Amino acid sequence: MRGLLTIKDIARLSGVSVSTVSRVLNDRPDVSEKSRRRVRAVIEDQNYIPNNTARDLVRVRSEAVGLIVRGVQNPFFTDIIHSIEGALEAAGYTMVMRQIGSGEDEIAAGASMQRDKRLRGIIFLGGRSNYTPEEVASVTIPFVLCSYSNSYGSLAPDSYSSVSICDRSAAADAVDALVANGHTRIAALVADRDDSSISQLRYEGYCEALAAHGIPVRPELVFSAGNSFLIEDAYLAMKEGLRKEDDFTALFAISDDMAIGAMRALREHGRRIPEDCSVAAIDGITVSEYIQPMLSTVCQPKEELGAKSVELLRELLEGRGGHAQVTLPTVFRLGESIHRIS
Amino acid sequence: MRGLLTIKDIARLSGVSVSTVSRVLNDRPDVSEKSRRRVRAVIEDQNYIPNNTARDLVRVRSEAVGLIVRGVQNPFFTDIIHSIEGALEAAGYTMVMRQIGSGEDEIAAGASMQRDKRLRGIIFLGGRSNYTPEEVASVTIPFVLCSYSNSYGSLAPDSYSSVSICDRSAAADAVDALVANGHTRIAALVADRDDSSISQLRYEGYCEALAAHGIPVRPELVFSAGNSFLIEDAYLAMKEGLRKEDDFTALFAISDDMAIGAMRALREHGRRIPEDCSVAAIDGITVSEYIQPMLSTVCQPKEELGAKSVELLRELLEGRGGHAQVTLPTVFRLGESIHRIS
Repeated sequence: MRGLLTIKDIARLSGVSVSTVSRVLNDRPDVSEKSRRRVRAVIEDQNYIPNNTARDLVRVRSEAVGLIVRGVQNPFFTDIIHSIEGALEAAGYTMVMRQIGSGEDEIAAGASMQRDKRLRGIIFLGGRSNYTPEEVASVTIPFVLCSYSNSYGSLAPDSYSSVSICDRSAAADAVDALVANGHTRIAALVADRDDSSISQLRYEGYCEALAAHGIPVRPELVFSAGNSFLIEDAYLAMKEGLRKEDDFTALFAISDDMAIGAMRALREHGRRIPEDCSVAAIDGITVSEYIQPMLSTVCQPKEELGAKSVELLRELLEGRGGHAQVTLPTVFRLGESIHRIS
Repeated sequence: MRGLLTIKDIARLSGVSVSTVSRVLNDRPDVSEKSRRRVRAVIEDQNYIPNNTARDLVRVRSEAVGLIVRGVQNPFFTDIIHSIEGALEAAGYTMVMRQIGSGEDEIAAGASMQRDKRLRGIIFLGGRSNYTPEEVASVTIPFVLCSYSNSYGSLAPDSYSSVSICDRSAAADAVDALVANGHTRIAALVADRDDSSISQLRYEGYCEALAAHGIPVRPELVFSAGNSFLIEDAYLAMKEGLRKEDDFTALFAISDDMAIGAMRALREHGRRIPEDCSVAAIDGITVSEYIQPMLSTVCQPKEELGAKSVELLRELLEGRGGHAQVTLPTVFRLGESIHRIS
């Protein structure tokens, strides 16, 4: 960030009133040339770049953008973080990052960080999809939801910005690939069914895809890792679940990481993959392409998710655009984890 | 960070000289009560907390600590970043993160970031091990090297701080495990042999371990991924290397990620793991415990690396301690990727 000089500071340093500084910074005509020169001199003396537009008042205050990452160990986020940081730096902003656990509340973290770090804007990487206007009101600076949207919430479309994939159709694509290979007894591994997160969205996509194929959802085939997307919790949930129920030929996992955890549990249960159990997931993290068998998964456009989020935030910060909810396309990668059955 | 008010700002706002502000902030007696009150009033008015000690002059300037991560896609760093961020926040600092590519120079990035972001200190996560005093002189604030040290450099031990494992002995532990299972034709997959990074250290550990067992190093069995630790580059280097030379029964990879890339190349070359080729590595990233076969690897203490780095930096910033090079212990995990041969 370039500095925390407030209008009040500038007014003191230049010996004029706060409203005069404001008029100078907004390039208004109703200010004397003498005052204008004084204010400009102070700004220049402090190594701040004066400019002609109103938004440079804000630029003088801080160039920090907060990145709040919920779900700290999600490898899917690594590439997105890199993409966001690069785009912010290129535009002259500083990224201040805070990682929070998947059980923490990102909006509360955002409100606190906005205050403590004097941010200009926030990008939320991962979060709930059920915000109310009252909840997000505690964040009074522009923000963008990255990798998720407000699918279960009550925010008006013209009041927030997000960049995400369509999680429901991504889940449907994964399930469709399993059905296309002859599977009808398809289990699901989710974080939670009703947590208003991408877990719920993807679970619903799973249910809808089964319904579209005339396959009833069997609740005993839905395994939950609780409020966690971690590989180790996915492994434990699957390990536990398999003790009670293993009457399925394929598994849909809501994330690559969870699929990797589940595959170990399946192997330990005596199932070869894909011969004895097919697996399909969503995300397309790098490692999923290198493991054996290569994971069949719906790949998210990681770089674009980050770049587009920064673009939307900049439009908001720089007064160039309004709110938008952007949905980016995904690509299914066949991999080697799906076995055709008759 | 709390603010970027400089002594110069305070002097202007309070109408006294810079040296007077300095005397007030250092609680020196040679300053009039009137000036002292003015300076204090300005500081309080700006919401800065005045205090009696010299180092609070610095505290007024900024509470930001830079984290420069070199090798952005290294999953090994994820847990360390989380640990560093938590420890910094708990101590009242803000983490400002910058990710740089493995081909970029972290010291140059640090010098630039120190200036642009007005940092109090820097933690370098990943970097070269051959700094000279002249090179690091461009960083004039306290810093700590995390996950590496100055093994090939010329920094005096009382002039820098680092927290790392012993990379040479970690490599030796991995190679020893292969030798203990009957292997003598042991290939190595490195980033570079002579890049003064942990790649070189681990390569030397490999050579030393072979020598200790009376096994000559065969240069044709050392595969290099160039200046890269990426899983995809490791895969490509191994794929290419296997076309020329495959007369080995075991592979030592300098990182888990590189091992995972190499294993795909080995499988595509017709080698089952571990039956046709054993693999051992270093790092202990989470996913390496869930893949098939579970990777045999030397695990780094990730949380402790981060926590200890923050502890050392705080001691430097808060005047409580001098420089130290801390080496943390590792643990070998047997996994399933080593096959005993007669």
